[in-house]
Amino acid sequence: MAQASAEETLNREQLHELAQQLRVDSVRAAAAAGSGHPTSSMSAADLMAVLLTRYLHYDFDAPQNRANDHLVFSKGHASPLLYSLYKMAGAIDDEELLTFREFGSRLQGHPTPEIPWVDVATGSLGQGLPISIGIALAGKRLEQADFRVWVLCGDSELAEGSMWEAFEHAGHAGLDNMIAIVDVNRLGQRGPTMHEWDTASWAARAAACGWDVQEIDGHDLEAIDAAYTRALAADRPAAIFARTKKGSGVAAVADQPNQHGKPLAEPEAAIEELGGIRSHRVEVQSPPEPRPYEIETTPVERPAYEVGEKVATRGAYGDALAWIGSLDERVVALDGEVGNSTYSERFAAKHPDRFFEMYIAEQQMVAAAVGLQTRDWKPFASSFGAFLSRAYDFVRMAAISDADLKLCGSHVGVSIGPDGPSQMALEDIASLRAVFDSVVLYPSDANQAVELVEAMRAHRGISYLRTTREATPVLYEPGESFEIGGSRTVRSSGEDRVTLIGAGITLHECLAAADQLAGKGIAARIIDLYSVKPVDADAILTAARETDAILTVEDHWAEGGIGETVAGVLAEAASATPLTRLAVTDRPGSGPPKDLLRAAGIDAAGITTAVEQALG
Amino acid sequence: MAQASAEETLNREQLHELAQQLRVDSVRAAAAAGSGHPTSSMSAADLMAVLLTRYLHYDFDAPQNRANDHLVFSKGHASPLLYSLYKMAGAIDDEELLTFREFGSRLQGHPTPEIPWVDVATGSLGQGLPISIGIALAGKRLEQADFRVWVLCGDSELAEGSMWEAFEHAGHAGLDNMIAIVDVNRLGQRGPTMHEWDTASWAARAAACGWDVQEIDGHDLEAIDAAYTRALAADRPAAIFARTKKGSGVAAVADQPNQHGKPLAEPEAAIEELGGIRSHRVEVQSPPEPRPYEIETTPVERPAYEVGEKVATRGAYGDALAWIGSLDERVVALDGEVGNSTYSERFAAKHPDRFFEMYIAEQQMVAAAVGLQTRDWKPFASSFGAFLSRAYDFVRMAAISDADLKLCGSHVGVSIGPDGPSQMALEDIASLRAVFDSVVLYPSDANQAVELVEAMRAHRGISYLRTTREATPVLYEPGESFEIGGSRTVRSSGEDRVTLIGAGITLHECLAAADQLAGKGIAARIIDLYSVKPVDADAILTAARETDAILTVEDHWAEGGIGETVAGVLAEAASATPLTRLAVTDRPGSGPPKDLLRAAGIDAAGITTAVEQALG
Repeated sequence: MAQASAEETLNREQLHELAQQLRVDSVRAAAAAGSGHPTSSMSAADLMAVLLTRYLHYDFDAPQNRANDHLVFSKGHASPLLYSLYKMAGAIDDEELLTFREFGSRLQGHPTPEIPWVDVATGSLGQGLPISIGIALAGKRLEQADFRVWVLCGDSELAEGSMWEAFEHAGHAGLDNMIAIVDVNRLGQRGPTMHEWDTASWAARAAACGWDVQEIDGHDLEAIDAAYTRALAADRPAAIFARTKKGSGVAAVADQPNQHGKPLAEPEAAIEELGGIRSHRVEVQSPPEPRPYEIETTPVERPAYEVGEKVATRGAYGDALAWIGSLDERVVALDGEVGNSTYSERFAAKHPDRFFEMYIAEQQMVAAAVGLQTRDWKPFASSFGAFLSRAYDFVRMAAISDADLKLCGSHVGVSIGPDGPSQMALEDIASLRAVFDSVVLYPSDANQAVELVEAMRAHRGISYLRTTREATPVLYEPGESFEIGGSRTVRSSGEDRVTLIGAGITLHECLAAADQLAGKGIAARIIDLYSVKPVDADAILTAARETDAILTVEDHWAEGGIGETVAGVLAEAASATPLTRLAVTDRPGSGPPKDLLRAAGIDAAGITTAVEQALG
Repeated sequence: MAQASAEETLNREQLHELAQQLRVDSVRAAAAAGSGHPTSSMSAADLMAVLLTRYLHYDFDAPQNRANDHLVFSKGHASPLLYSLYKMAGAIDDEELLTFREFGSRLQGHPTPEIPWVDVATGSLGQGLPISIGIALAGKRLEQADFRVWVLCGDSELAEGSMWEAFEHAGHAGLDNMIAIVDVNRLGQRGPTMHEWDTASWAARAAACGWDVQEIDGHDLEAIDAAYTRALAADRPAAIFARTKKGSGVAAVADQPNQHGKPLAEPEAAIEELGGIRSHRVEVQSPPEPRPYEIETTPVERPAYEVGEKVATRGAYGDALAWIGSLDERVVALDGEVGNSTYSERFAAKHPDRFFEMYIAEQQMVAAAVGLQTRDWKPFASSFGAFLSRAYDFVRMAAISDADLKLCGSHVGVSIGPDGPSQMALEDIASLRAVFDSVVLYPSDANQAVELVEAMRAHRGISYLRTTREATPVLYEPGESFEIGGSRTVRSSGEDRVTLIGAGITLHECLAAADQLAGKGIAARIIDLYSVKPVDADAILTAARETDAILTVEDHWAEGGIGETVAGVLAEAASATPLTRLAVTDRPGSGPPKDLLRAAGIDAAGITTAVEQALG
């Protein structure tokens, strides 16, 4: 089938043929797999046939082409449709299509970037649209690029608040390169959605967010075509709410309940009803030449702090971020409306063009970061560590996307003091260690924080920096090297009886405790475990061999933090050196940091007492 | 000051006096603490003065009175205002007010239910309104009660998607007992909000969600009064968007930047400007007599499965939930639009009045559960385990609220198979163990699951049940007892050389591995660690003493799961028995469950190989 450019008159029959092919292939893929979501694919077949044939600009031979449009399936379960589109575009063959959901096939149940034309993993609903905001921000604000971001959304996922964070942000940022196509097929997994085919409520809300909105019949090819034309011409982000039938094209399943997420009972009959197997091929329009763009950088000196000076590591993060922003023009920063607390405002002051204020919408902040990194930007997203928990599902999915995502959480632990427990990250080490291939760093002084921020920049993957609210003495000389996966033995003698392992604020308590213990004739080794994941097992095992007891001290719950990390190392090595884990074990309240550290038993006095107990 | 009932004419001067007192006390509390959010309190002082004096029905001497209105500060950082209200109502004295943020004071930086008039902890923005939906659902759908839920929201927090999940759900559920008062003071923490004083966008969105909306001047006492009157009369949830000035009443800070979250620089001058210290007392109107209500229950038999029968524990969860719903009329269930996967639909079938479909809005689902438990309902909220990560911040905050919250996550681990990694919970044990005082249960068979669901019902606190998608053989007799904190040694002899510790699907792989090992002359003890937190340390340490090696096997990342739990027990006891931790260590794809378990090395063959290595 010849290319149908947008200039040509709409060929209704031809488009219908293509849409039917997408339906047939969706049915076939799910039938071959014995699972999947063919009905959720069939509802959007007309929408996607028109898009692929007449609007999308994409070079499937060169997915790295920076001028390509982006096509994000926010309703990732419609993967049979996406893969059928790939076949129609000639990107995969029919044989591969039928490997859908097989072990080892890149055509997984939900799309992931293992497929070169997929930007990000979807399948946790409500994520594709917010992530696309980041892609659109890259195109609009950083690259002045011409590409469009086409996002196929489901209606069920409009119940996720993250979708409305995205509508809000796109409107606020004037992202006229965004087109959201909502496949309103009325039926969720277990029954009707809240609004069924009443698209007016959503349209009113999107319009109030500053979007151009249209409500159409999603099976009317002319209406679809007209909607896309208008969306492209809009001076704002465009949303098309398309009323469709789930399973459309096959009477046995069309708009029927209990047809979600399963292959059709009678695929052969369905294929016949749809007009049989086809193998039409569409020549997708090529993108224009990529436009060059320039990023201005402001020189910023590497921050350096004097040993003994009192500096909060959150401040060092801000300084370091500003510095690496001058080293590397791909570095961008995102804030959750707390930039004057995390100190990402220091980056903003130097590199305002690469700073993104995402307001109090942590899901959107992390999602935008994931979107930005699809275009090779290096995003640092920061908020209070406690509030990053709001975006945990987005971080989880970012790992499936193999994203290059740098996170910083400030105000961790009880040591933040008077603001109280709602503001204290006490579970961040545990939750962010439990992310595939993540790096978890927890600097103990400002110069080390600078070095670790630069290490995060250089590291490709998901990394997390845990920073402290309180100012603590600088321990290390500027420029001292600290690597991901390392540790630093900050105090040691030939006579050490006990090893104290801390990081962040507790390292300072360990140092004070060691002084108290020295007064009692007990020499203590101190390890700064600034890299909690990956962990320096050698240093821990050496300490286990050379000292009689190990204590870990952390401003975090006992579960999943430094103590358990060390326990894992010791137990796997069958070490008989006893471990004592000091951590926060009671619900904290408000108060001065010192009182809260004391109440949790993780201050110097608590450590000293625990050492004496451990050594009997 | 005498009681001002709603029937009386508005006494403008009197109300202004009261509002000024609230401002003064907010300034004083923050000055005494040396921290806090006085300006965020001052903006809403007029709104709250009118509410307390003329609209709220609350017996501060009897916070347990079920007819009391609810007053939720979704903008929890306005705690100085809330505590000033308590003083004005005579609930606390001036001396206590000035203990704000002191160590040991119940007047923490952000409100928590340590204070008897506080329903839930707030301070993580965007939570108070969604939680209030649960309170309103209890009143409207379960109790046919007359109370109102008054929620003071901030404008900054309207950027959180969770707020729009709440607007959507309240409209859908017709919660005419909800009144959201939005204090639109234009300034966030670090600068202006997206919409500043342009309330039209929010009002349009709330109206589209089915709310009665008003936009008013939040310092116009007559306008406030009229707005509350109209809100009470509305046949739908009511939102009042009140334009205010942050720090209103004190020229030095009113509507000024950089005045967030800090005491006033010159509190004495501010107090003078506000007219000095006052000690007016308001007699808050009493609630009406509580209305009796009845809950109908349908008898459901206790589920029981035959040993050897193949049953998925998620199915047993659904059956057990329906059963305990008949045992205990306080049990309610919430679904995130996957009730036909988690099988909470089986509860819905028997107890439709106590079933809440929350659609694909996991934050709102958990928030509503937290709201329901404030009125002594026992909520079980279930979704895919992976998607509960969406609500992690809500679970974190629920622990600060000391909430009675039961969660169930289905479809955990790689063993779900073809749907792929986006649907696999692989971090849920880690993240939910790292919640204060939580219980984490992971049943290995259907009869055990039934027992554990009943244990969760009886347990007050946050508990999590991890259920498996695949059907596995029933191991235990119906009615066998399983306690929180226990374990079950399912295979043991005097000759055990190795201990295999699993739970859920891996327990079955351990059993198969033990058979293979027996063929090689290696006797293996098997522990079913169905209670991951709290953990049965005795059983682990006994195994460490009696066998030469311990292997943990889990369908979860290595971090923070069963392996690290066991490592913690061994290391603290200084056990020299080597631990091998088998867990998922690579990013999984799609495929048959068996292939994915094999690829992760956590199937019987992988376990057997690891045992042989461990034993040398």
